[in-house]
Amino acid sequence: RIDGARLWDSLMEMAKVGPGLRGGNNRQTLTDADREGRDLFKRWCEEAGMSVGVDSMGNMFARLEGAEPDLDPVMMGSHLDTQPTGGKYDGVLGVLAGLEVVRSIRDQGIIPRRPIVVVNWTNEEGTRFAPAMLSSGVFAGVHTQNWAYAREDAEGKRFGDELARIGYVGDEPVGQRKMHAMFELHIEQGPILEAEGKDIGVVTHGQGLSWTQVTVTGKESHTGSTPMPMRRNAGLGIARILEKVDEIAWSHKPHAVGAAGHIEVFPNSRNVIPGKAVFTVDFRSPELAVIEDMEARLRSEGQKIADEMGLEIAFEKVGGFDPVPFDEGCVDAVRRAAEKLGYSHREIISGAGHDACWIARVAPTAMIMCPCVDGLSHNEDEEISREWAAAGCDVLLHAVLETAEI
Amino acid sequence: RIDGARLWDSLMEMAKVGPGLRGGNNRQTLTDADREGRDLFKRWCEEAGMSVGVDSMGNMFARLEGAEPDLDPVMMGSHLDTQPTGGKYDGVLGVLAGLEVVRSIRDQGIIPRRPIVVVNWTNEEGTRFAPAMLSSGVFAGVHTQNWAYAREDAEGKRFGDELARIGYVGDEPVGQRKMHAMFELHIEQGPILEAEGKDIGVVTHGQGLSWTQVTVTGKESHTGSTPMPMRRNAGLGIARILEKVDEIAWSHKPHAVGAAGHIEVFPNSRNVIPGKAVFTVDFRSPELAVIEDMEARLRSEGQKIADEMGLEIAFEKVGGFDPVPFDEGCVDAVRRAAEKLGYSHREIISGAGHDACWIARVAPTAMIMCPCVDGLSHNEDEEISREWAAAGCDVLLHAVLETAEI
Ligand SMILES: NC(=O)NCCC(=O)O
Ligand SMILES: NC(=O)NCCC(=O)O
Repeated sequence: RIDGARLWDSLMEMAKVGPGLRGGNNRQTLTDADREGRDLFKRWCEEAGMSVGVDSMGNMFARLEGAEPDLDPVMMGSHLDTQPTGGKYDGVLGVLAGLEVVRSIRDQGIIPRRPIVVVNWTNEEGTRFAPAMLSSGVFAGVHTQNWAYAREDAEGKRFGDELARIGYVGDEPVGQRKMHAMFELHIEQGPILEAEGKDIGVVTHGQGLSWTQVTVTGKESHTGSTPMPMRRNAGLGIARILEKVDEIAWSHKPHAVGAAGHIEVFPNSRNVIPGKAVFTVDFRSPELAVIEDMEARLRSEGQKIADEMGLEIAFEKVGGFDPVPFDEGCVDAVRRAAEKLGYSHREIISGAGHDACWIARVAPTAMIMCPCVDGLSHNEDEEISREWAAAGCDVLLHAVLETAEI
Repeated sequence: RIDGARLWDSLMEMAKVGPGLRGGNNRQTLTDADREGRDLFKRWCEEAGMSVGVDSMGNMFARLEGAEPDLDPVMMGSHLDTQPTGGKYDGVLGVLAGLEVVRSIRDQGIIPRRPIVVVNWTNEEGTRFAPAMLSSGVFAGVHTQNWAYAREDAEGKRFGDELARIGYVGDEPVGQRKMHAMFELHIEQGPILEAEGKDIGVVTHGQGLSWTQVTVTGKESHTGSTPMPMRRNAGLGIARILEKVDEIAWSHKPHAVGAAGHIEVFPNSRNVIPGKAVFTVDFRSPELAVIEDMEARLRSEGQKIADEMGLEIAFEKVGGFDPVPFDEGCVDAVRRAAEKLGYSHREIISGAGHDACWIARVAPTAMIMCPCVDGLSHNEDEEISREWAAAGCDVLLHAVLETAEI
């Protein structure tokens, strides 16, 4: 078993870096707070006897040597970046649980045949630079590094420049590390495990995602002196499209979700009818056909609404991944570990995207989930119990050790 | 007649200060660009033989002495501040036409009995600091100066601090200047005069306004892993309320308008269901009862929508003024001037709020309107013809001279 108290201490210590306003975290990717979090993680890894390499996307790999260094390592990890009003566990648990696994292995004098690597993937959240899971995506060959470097945040700063600014452009070319398998422990971010009183989610699939950025163009004009029939109100355009997004997602119930988290109007002045509105629609489903249907309907129904209102509309796909089945062997290792340790468990589909979803394309991969209070995530109030964290980390330990062949 | 070419040159010269991105202006109140525009106006006034006083709200008064200096002066003016993506004429025309009137009077060696004052009212637009017409409102005793000083912009900067920063806290206590009458020339900002081919709008009333800031609170959560039935989506809440705002305004057609120009969601991240949304509803009508009905329905229907969706909602009135009838004597002076000069004209109700609407509470006041292309305003493409500007300024000259008793 791992040391649950030590794991919790590390979580609380990391949460001091880039604190939020209401008890959570604002440690967005490639900010000064992200650098500070990375530096702390690096120090901890070195103290635990690991050597830390960084690749050209800023992905960090902390390696514990195995008895047979030439064998491909077993990886485990997640991400240290957070939402602007994020929680203390989303991503962080998976990275620090990896560290705790290594600390426990060394405490117990275990030397597995295969090396073990703890990884921190850069920009999983995608909140500052879309899309999410950017650097695991480059690692897996889904995006090119050049394309990733050119992603811009809301202020027009580029990913590549910000990565250099915080000093985390590593000398190792991205995507060259071999791995035997990868495991990612993550909080569920949904309500199922807690509601059913299960300790562990054995993740069999990840649902797919489509992000479409919609730009509606009307005509800026005066809110007082422009007669109602002459208005081309881009703000009212988004209102109608958002209602449609909700309707489309419900039409596939219970196999789909849909919403817009990002919404902006221009010039955003009380007495100017919005001449432009930009928002991003997030559709998800475990079924590819459902995602494709929702995306197509957004485009056709959105076009219809715009036409009726005399607005122009443009759609741009700014992120997406297909539903992914995880590796059967790795999933079995997770299930066996939970069984062996006596933790209650059930199979589950991940509602969120995770770095593991991209890595699954290039290596055998699986995920472990632990419950979170009220299913709440991407919220500063995100909470888990120490017991849940420890159980997830225990299962990670045993799944990794089995795979690393002690 | 005034010198139309000189008026146009001054308009184009002022438009160079705080240029917009697409040919218009971004000279928002109390910015460095606003200071620069004020300095230029002051210089021009002094060159035209006027002395410039500034009150504690930054309102600027340029005075041309009359034959009988003890008589109350006739004022004319408007505002030099603009929207973030504003035009070159909204407000500016009324101030620089006042300057042109004085220049013409001096050219022709006319000395009216009453002094003449050209005024630039601070923060008419209300885009940076709500509400609009802030400083003419304080002048007229509608708001206190302390309350006005405490208004904050989106970055939390206070009106009073920003006024001091640009060096325009004058030594004259606000509201103490007496006046015999005030005239404001302004572009229509609507389509009526141009459509009917009229040179001049004789403004009989200003319609009233109500600004209600609405805050909808839901729960931030993950867009992927939060099941549809568990969502409390503040972004969807605004969508439904905006649809209702449109419906309420149309229900009073053609005597009302309604829209929201200011819309924000938090934390505004693509994969976070908005936990909070803030927007400002702008309702207007020439009839007070209609405004009151719309405001009441916004509150009751908004509450209903929020209740149905499990959202909290709060309403705050952040601006408003009642419909205003202008002074019959002043309105007649405008009509007579248009008649005398042979300009086509019609009576009109102002769709927008203007400083004249507040000043009408403390002095006999009227407005003159000139057409603008396509009724477009609060848009960088706002346009007027030289002839329209000159005609409006001619009418201003004659109405003012008659009132100042040459
Ligand atoms: N786990 C997580 O929140 N990932 C961000 C990508 C997503 O929106 O699913
Ligand atoms: N004229 C003008 O645009 N004034 C700003 C106040 C309003 O929104 O009516």
